[in-house]
Amino acid sequence: MSYPVMIRPDEALSLVLGHTSHTAVESIRLSEAAGRFLARPLCADRDYPPFDRAMMDGFAVSLRDRGRTCRVTAEVAAGDPLPEPLEPGCAVQIMTGAACPPGTNVVLPIEQAVMEGDLLRLPDDLIAGKHIARAGSECRAGQKLLQAGARLSPLAIANLATCGRAIAEVFALPKVTLISTGNELVDAAVTPQSTQIRDSTSPMLGAFLELAAVRYHTVQGAPDDPHALHAAVEEAASGSDVVIFTGGVSAGKHDYLPQALLEAGAEIVFHKVRQKPGKPLLLASLAGRLIFGLPGNPLSAHLGFHRYILAALRQMQGADPAPLTAQALLNEELTPDRRRTRFVLARWQDAEITPISCKGSADIYSVAGANAYLRIDPEDKSKEAGTLVRFELTGGV
Amino acid sequence: MSYPVMIRPDEALSLVLGHTSHTAVESIRLSEAAGRFLARPLCADRDYPPFDRAMMDGFAVSLRDRGRTCRVTAEVAAGDPLPEPLEPGCAVQIMTGAACPPGTNVVLPIEQAVMEGDLLRLPDDLIAGKHIARAGSECRAGQKLLQAGARLSPLAIANLATCGRAIAEVFALPKVTLISTGNELVDAAVTPQSTQIRDSTSPMLGAFLELAAVRYHTVQGAPDDPHALHAAVEEAASGSDVVIFTGGVSAGKHDYLPQALLEAGAEIVFHKVRQKPGKPLLLASLAGRLIFGLPGNPLSAHLGFHRYILAALRQMQGADPAPLTAQALLNEELTPDRRRTRFVLARWQDAEITPISCKGSADIYSVAGANAYLRIDPEDKSKEAGTLVRFELTGGV
Repeated sequence: MSYPVMIRPDEALSLVLGHTSHTAVESIRLSEAAGRFLARPLCADRDYPPFDRAMMDGFAVSLRDRGRTCRVTAEVAAGDPLPEPLEPGCAVQIMTGAACPPGTNVVLPIEQAVMEGDLLRLPDDLIAGKHIARAGSECRAGQKLLQAGARLSPLAIANLATCGRAIAEVFALPKVTLISTGNELVDAAVTPQSTQIRDSTSPMLGAFLELAAVRYHTVQGAPDDPHALHAAVEEAASGSDVVIFTGGVSAGKHDYLPQALLEAGAEIVFHKVRQKPGKPLLLASLAGRLIFGLPGNPLSAHLGFHRYILAALRQMQGADPAPLTAQALLNEELTPDRRRTRFVLARWQDAEITPISCKGSADIYSVAGANAYLRIDPEDKSKEAGTLVRFELTGGV
Repeated sequence: MSYPVMIRPDEALSLVLGHTSHTAVESIRLSEAAGRFLARPLCADRDYPPFDRAMMDGFAVSLRDRGRTCRVTAEVAAGDPLPEPLEPGCAVQIMTGAACPPGTNVVLPIEQAVMEGDLLRLPDDLIAGKHIARAGSECRAGQKLLQAGARLSPLAIANLATCGRAIAEVFALPKVTLISTGNELVDAAVTPQSTQIRDSTSPMLGAFLELAAVRYHTVQGAPDDPHALHAAVEEAASGSDVVIFTGGVSAGKHDYLPQALLEAGAEIVFHKVRQKPGKPLLLASLAGRLIFGLPGNPLSAHLGFHRYILAALRQMQGADPAPLTAQALLNEELTPDRRRTRFVLARWQDAEITPISCKGSADIYSVAGANAYLRIDPEDKSKEAGTLVRFELTGGV
């Protein structure tokens, strides 16, 4: 074996990201762009507001007329053409969002307006500029509003819409193929024999892909056979940006994946990571495609997907590959393992986070409600209960 | 007006939730259930593991034989039927996940196995139970694994799959109609005149609905006319769980929504909330349907959707209506407004949160990259820079 084995988690992540390139840029309708990642920065197309805009419903008036009564000579609504300039002794009724007549110093809110018959009585204490958003005061034409790689949140979509981007340029969604090997597991719809269990890893990974909103398809139960696997590798890699195998990466007699990958011409980038759970993780590369081998145990596969595959899927779309992290008070001591980095599933609620002890990497029952990962490295001190700790949110908050 | 006006934000939220009921329960395929909310608790269908399960690839052996050599008499893989009991002086080669032969005390990992020809040499220091997950040690039949209302994360999906739920019972997705009133705004694809701006609020709300993964449709540009609005209210409420109007809820001459709602027979639950932005928020109820009136200004509509509508959409699906909150160090002072609760958009990154100052509720430009809301109530003290504060994550992290 000429590839690194039993490397540290951060080295593994670096190797994953170092083998990951951006997907192509595609143009999609803005109405379909929520949650996607912007491929080019967005700059303001003009000054905002583009005109002196009334911020309240009321009357556009001039400071010169304070303390006087004014005739209301016109009415201007949002979207109307620019009104004639204000004449001395005149006011214009104006709606929120409308362009103020030239010469307007103040918008007097309708709630404060005192009418004397048809005339508007202006108070003495008008304040210059009140309730007017001056042209260019919110942003200037050319100002950068969104960076490339920005996730298209509702606010980001609002900015694209205002600037006239009915079509958004985003990174294409990665195409993923998920191949579960092994034939010992039965489907969720089947009643298992006493020594069988149902497959939980494949549905779990499918859920991860669904929530990551990528394009994917799944291949159930590829045989544990080196030649069939070889064919599966070649076929999957030809049509996908990422191929994920589950199972077949441990030291068992039927763990043929590394051999099948080499036969298919793939480069094995690393195999096994100094972490618990998920040690047998494998990364290979074939013609620019990423091929992951995840252990079949569900919690090992969960960590592998959360930590390495999601990072790759984010980076492919131009986004920051790091997961969302937050901090909370740890309410049970967390001790290191001197040989491997521990990633511990936890339940985060409000200001507290509770590590969940589980009985091995098949015990999905104890952690059914987990929503976060804590991390402790071999050289770390124990993290005491009551201390503020940083953690990663999982996809399933 | 016989309905409450200018109420406090928490009272408004209570009224929203008090008028919100669960959607119907529906049965969907597990492969489509990620991110949905469970309608009934999940209890384990049997003990897990259902048998003494090997946790490593290696050899199933008996403590009685420690320090001796054993014949390897059989091989058992995951999913194979229960093997014959271990005979004295015998070992069974076993794969991870397989059922241990009766009489097995230890699984000796293959990495530690010393072969002498065909015979397996057992060390002296075998530890009882090592690398065996005993039947029922992970969970007991009947144990509650997921609560009703649990969000179906990948781990939750794994639990449903293991327990044989190929079909999941979840709350139906709410049906939402989004109606934008007002004709002063132009579409993102149009080049506006000098006094026109493009509509950002409707695409922003569409993005919110898209990310909330509910069923929705949008009606652009319903006329600012009381009779047309009346018809829109009736039609929308007949087919939707939630109807959202934008615009038409302020005090302007063309703000006909309250009148149109009353004419259509709706009950107005409240109008105007003591908050900034988003004061003109309106809630009405018609035949069990929720009707929201959001202000047309994009940041007012954003707060209204984030805080009230998302809470209702979550509660309709049986979920906790509260948004995700976290805490971080505030790095600029936040001062209260003595008349209204302030909700301040902010940028959360790592351990710090920065409030973003913006120039009124149309200034989406300054806050394009916001991902959180800070809150400060009128009676609160100023929050000093450097203090740990709690905040709400927006949908667009």
